[in-house]
Amino acid sequence: MKDNAAVRFQLLHTDPATKARRGRLTTPHGTVETPVFMPVGTAATVKAVKPEDVKALGAEILLSNTYHLFLRPGHEIVKEAGGLHTFMNWDGPILTDSGGFQVFSLGAMRKIKEAGVEFRSHIDGGAHMLTPEKSIEIQNALGADIIMAFDECTDYPVDRTYAEEAAERTTRWLLRCKAAHRDTERQSLFGIMQGGMYKDLRKRSAEQITGMDLPGYAIGGLSVGEPKQMMYDILDDCVDLLPADKPRYLMGVGSPDALFEGVERGVDMFDCVLPTREARHGSVMTSRGDLNIKNARYARDFGPLDPECDCYTCSHYSRAYLRHLFKSGEIMSAMLLSIHNLRFLTRTMEEIRQSIEDGRFLAFKESFFSSWNANE
Amino acid sequence: MKDNAAVRFQLLHTDPATKARRGRLTTPHGTVETPVFMPVGTAATVKAVKPEDVKALGAEILLSNTYHLFLRPGHEIVKEAGGLHTFMNWDGPILTDSGGFQVFSLGAMRKIKEAGVEFRSHIDGGAHMLTPEKSIEIQNALGADIIMAFDECTDYPVDRTYAEEAAERTTRWLLRCKAAHRDTERQSLFGIMQGGMYKDLRKRSAEQITGMDLPGYAIGGLSVGEPKQMMYDILDDCVDLLPADKPRYLMGVGSPDALFEGVERGVDMFDCVLPTREARHGSVMTSRGDLNIKNARYARDFGPLDPECDCYTCSHYSRAYLRHLFKSGEIMSAMLLSIHNLRFLTRTMEEIRQSIEDGRFLAFKESFFSSWNANE
Repeated sequence: MKDNAAVRFQLLHTDPATKARRGRLTTPHGTVETPVFMPVGTAATVKAVKPEDVKALGAEILLSNTYHLFLRPGHEIVKEAGGLHTFMNWDGPILTDSGGFQVFSLGAMRKIKEAGVEFRSHIDGGAHMLTPEKSIEIQNALGADIIMAFDECTDYPVDRTYAEEAAERTTRWLLRCKAAHRDTERQSLFGIMQGGMYKDLRKRSAEQITGMDLPGYAIGGLSVGEPKQMMYDILDDCVDLLPADKPRYLMGVGSPDALFEGVERGVDMFDCVLPTREARHGSVMTSRGDLNIKNARYARDFGPLDPECDCYTCSHYSRAYLRHLFKSGEIMSAMLLSIHNLRFLTRTMEEIRQSIEDGRFLAFKESFFSSWNANE
Repeated sequence: MKDNAAVRFQLLHTDPATKARRGRLTTPHGTVETPVFMPVGTAATVKAVKPEDVKALGAEILLSNTYHLFLRPGHEIVKEAGGLHTFMNWDGPILTDSGGFQVFSLGAMRKIKEAGVEFRSHIDGGAHMLTPEKSIEIQNALGADIIMAFDECTDYPVDRTYAEEAAERTTRWLLRCKAAHRDTERQSLFGIMQGGMYKDLRKRSAEQITGMDLPGYAIGGLSVGEPKQMMYDILDDCVDLLPADKPRYLMGVGSPDALFEGVERGVDMFDCVLPTREARHGSVMTSRGDLNIKNARYARDFGPLDPECDCYTCSHYSRAYLRHLFKSGEIMSAMLLSIHNLRFLTRTMEEIRQSIEDGRFLAFKESFFSSWNANE
């Protein structure tokens, strides 16, 4: 890797008892302490949370979606606006995915070819094609600090033949992505490992992509419907296949239990729509487990969502008020619950980082889950 | 009026050329400079705008709705929470309406009797009754600084017989409201004038209600569908029927032209859902007139909504971004456009107040409308 790569990773501490690690990403838009949870801003906005509030709750890097921004408003418009950072008023680091996962998720509305993926827009049914080169072109226009390879993500369950085919194509597409991406000083391209739930395929995929000397690597094709224990089992092997001096990103994972298990196995980066999506449905993440704000028991509950939380919402509003807002269909409900859920995960990651520095990650994990399972 | 009334009004300046006046309301939760536009927080939230942002954009007093809070979450819950200020995290002045206008707007779902109004909830069809005493009980529980009399608002057009009947009943109900409201040091009760579009009925209504020596008076039954010029004509007479040393509140008015015309005729207070409702529909109030953010011409327009605006939205986001958010159905669209529209009206009122102090109200009005009608 060149020294003037856009994104560089520094490994600061490794937990003596596990593979958990404490690191730091340096990007053109600032540093990111790892392990990190990245809030998702699909359409160039973290849904219902102003950028200043996203920053205030401790988030250091956002994820945004190539597929969505390509279709609407179009990457040329974002580029003309001065890039995604300016467009959405977020001056911190951004990671864009490649659109791969989204087009594969379209099912019958997409067709995979060696050249790329033909698909129909979920918005208006219009025909489009994403290729490795097109994905890079779009991501170059968006201008995120970290851009992702265009990969072929498989579902669960998947037969071995297709898993192998998808992993091999992902490698060939990565070569094309790397060739298409020129300005490595402005944006860093991360490769993505595939291979389904087949450990030997994962190993081969890892060997192929790490041979390309990229500034970071992601583990794709997990959290796609398999049992959590199976994901952890695959992770046990996967992480060791990736170089220790590069950041490791587990895509699409954001439940508290999976974050701890991922960190314990040496993962540095996570993203998920879970905290904001759940918030819009009234589901609240707390130190004692999830609660549903719709529940009648909160009608006269004048305490905060989570007594241990320091977020804006918990500092100023009661469960009774938040239940009232949710039941009234008020936008403010999504705003306040999203801030809380994002802060919950961000604070959990802060505490995880501190516990790794202090050499007590497993003790912290145990104490977290002893109260988290209280199921109040 | 007793000297220890909750709300007191101080008349600071009167425009030499018109009846426009500059005043100040002192309330238990702070002072309010008049003429003032009050943003509406129907269900104990200004839709899509956090209280800190409402304050930051210059709003000094909010209006909230008795009808809505009575039905959901119920005024007892708001009272148990410590009152409306605590419940909704707004420590500034609040005015609550009486629920009168809302129940009359239910049409076939309500029945007016001398005792009060029987109605069915718009939420679940449940049967309820609002009386002058009940409205005061609810408003006492909510704890707003200014509470409103339970009145009978008539539509436009309305025949003389019914307009007279409604105005007379409004007076009888005001007597009952006044008798029911005890703690005048904590909350001030304003009376409401009715009388439809009949000037002699307006005069009689004014004489009856001002005879009760209340700390403020509202003009109800306008902006109910009549031509604007008719409203201004009625206002010409109405305002002079109210005492000069008490605040005058024109209910439900918030379009820029009506604000100027109201101020010119001596009105001190206004409220309307217009700025936030329009914002949710993509309609933007600007110094050059309204614009619809959906319009294709804004797709590549990287300027602010209004080049003359100092709001958060105009400082950080482009029309192209806001159009993208609106077309994507993002909650952030309602958030950012609401902030802008509220700031537009709040800033216009700031400028109106300054122009009255400077004795150039009419000149300011003329300059405002010369660009406002530009219809860009």
